[in-house]
Amino acid sequence: MQDQQIYDSNAAAKKAVKEALFVVKIGGNIIDNAEKLENFLQQFSTIKGKKILVHGGGKLATQLAKDLGIEQEMVEGRRITDAATLKIVTMVYAGYINKNIVAQLQANGNNAIGFTGADANLIKAHKRLASASKGIDYGFVGDVDEVNTAAIKPLLEQDITIVVAPITHDGNGQLLNTNADTIAQSIATAMGNQYHVSLLYCFEKSGVLLDANDDESVIPTIDQAYFKKLKEEQLIFAGMIPKLENAFTALEKGVEKVIIGKAESILDLVQAKAGTTIQNN
Amino acid sequence: MQDQQIYDSNAAAKKAVKEALFVVKIGGNIIDNAEKLENFLQQFSTIKGKKILVHGGGKLATQLAKDLGIEQEMVEGRRITDAATLKIVTMVYAGYINKNIVAQLQANGNNAIGFTGADANLIKAHKRLASASKGIDYGFVGDVDEVNTAAIKPLLEQDITIVVAPITHDGNGQLLNTNADTIAQSIATAMGNQYHVSLLYCFEKSGVLLDANDDESVIPTIDQAYFKKLKEEQLIFAGMIPKLENAFTALEKGVEKVIIGKAESILDLVQAKAGTTIQNN
Repeated sequence: MQDQQIYDSNAAAKKAVKEALFVVKIGGNIIDNAEKLENFLQQFSTIKGKKILVHGGGKLATQLAKDLGIEQEMVEGRRITDAATLKIVTMVYAGYINKNIVAQLQANGNNAIGFTGADANLIKAHKRLASASKGIDYGFVGDVDEVNTAAIKPLLEQDITIVVAPITHDGNGQLLNTNADTIAQSIATAMGNQYHVSLLYCFEKSGVLLDANDDESVIPTIDQAYFKKLKEEQLIFAGMIPKLENAFTALEKGVEKVIIGKAESILDLVQAKAGTTIQNN
Repeated sequence: MQDQQIYDSNAAAKKAVKEALFVVKIGGNIIDNAEKLENFLQQFSTIKGKKILVHGGGKLATQLAKDLGIEQEMVEGRRITDAATLKIVTMVYAGYINKNIVAQLQANGNNAIGFTGADANLIKAHKRLASASKGIDYGFVGDVDEVNTAAIKPLLEQDITIVVAPITHDGNGQLLNTNADTIAQSIATAMGNQYHVSLLYCFEKSGVLLDANDDESVIPTIDQAYFKKLKEEQLIFAGMIPKLENAFTALEKGVEKVIIGKAESILDLVQAKAGTTIQNN
């Protein structure tokens, strides 16, 4: 109840100008666990105002491919999407996961609607050329060209939550498999001129850690100057650097805050009371 | 071009009062055939104005179940939907078929958005009780309680086509498998007080036939009096009677016309130049 009051007064204060919009990305560690997902969606439903939820679902897709005897090829952690795999990810992401999330949000009194990039032409993408990816042919993988904010603005204005599956289209009838982190970032930056956008990446750690083995060592805030220092003094582990660079790119493109943390702490994350907040200042 | 002009002038004439809305249901014979589906969607895209497309997809679901080694039980032509089957139909209907139709409509310049009953709470249903179906437990099968027209009205007003997969929800987080014919009828009747609704059922025959073996023997129009005569004189084959009774029920509930015919003739069907038109008068 206390949390709700805080959001309500925030919303009222901001109504005169731009409203807050949370773009939240959840990944496999939550989606693959029915109990964790249910708990997350329950908490997420209590957040008032404008929300976009972007989900992945790779492990369930891998399992279905396995059950069907379709071999999955991964190159540098990315799935090669042949025609059979595209069908699988479309079924799993846009069908099974997306609709179950929407139904659960409805059960929690949170009106929601599922989207792919094809729906109302929300996200147009182009098939990644092998020449653009070190000669690797990723198959039906899409790189985002354009987010059509008009497709979702009227729904957000009615406080309907947009639930986005990581499938895009090329405008010529071809569906494409697109990285969910990229989709969240693309939507967040596109909405930046209309809302005060916070982009929340939920992952398995509590935030950006000073000590990768100590989940208590979360760095609360990182700005450009501190990021420079962290890199120079090699205080954060290398794998986190591209994530942070992406976060700063989002900030440059109009997102106000990027917050990285655990899905379990979503109610604290939206208030920047948990996780790591990355911001320019 | 000639067809387009006809629709444009119709739309203009009706603008002052209620506008026309076509609710079109397509079934397996079109969906299972990529070439036929592409051809249908191309024609469908040229129809101007408000459109809702409801699709089934049973054969593709049956095939996926077979590939996964999940046994499908049918009772009186209806699928028993256990949990594994519900997952399959959700993946196939709401994921694969729905998103491919939406992407193809976009490619044809027809802005479209995919829905299930869970999305924006479009269709609420309840799980069919065994006591309500001759003691047969159909599993996760939903009988429609309510169509929430507000969920799609603003989109229709922007001439965005609504593409509906036959999955509903119970409001408590449970998705349900619902007959696509029933969904088309429920949506059509619910929209009746806001639009001039024509409900088009596309099936494998050219319409209601006087001679079941002669596809040329289509009855152009059936009203209540003629239906009575057809029944009394046993001029139509028994299997068609429940379909026609459903059509008259839709008419009683506010639908203006029900048209039954071939998907291949969709441009003639919308003008009642092909198929059988069932109407009260």
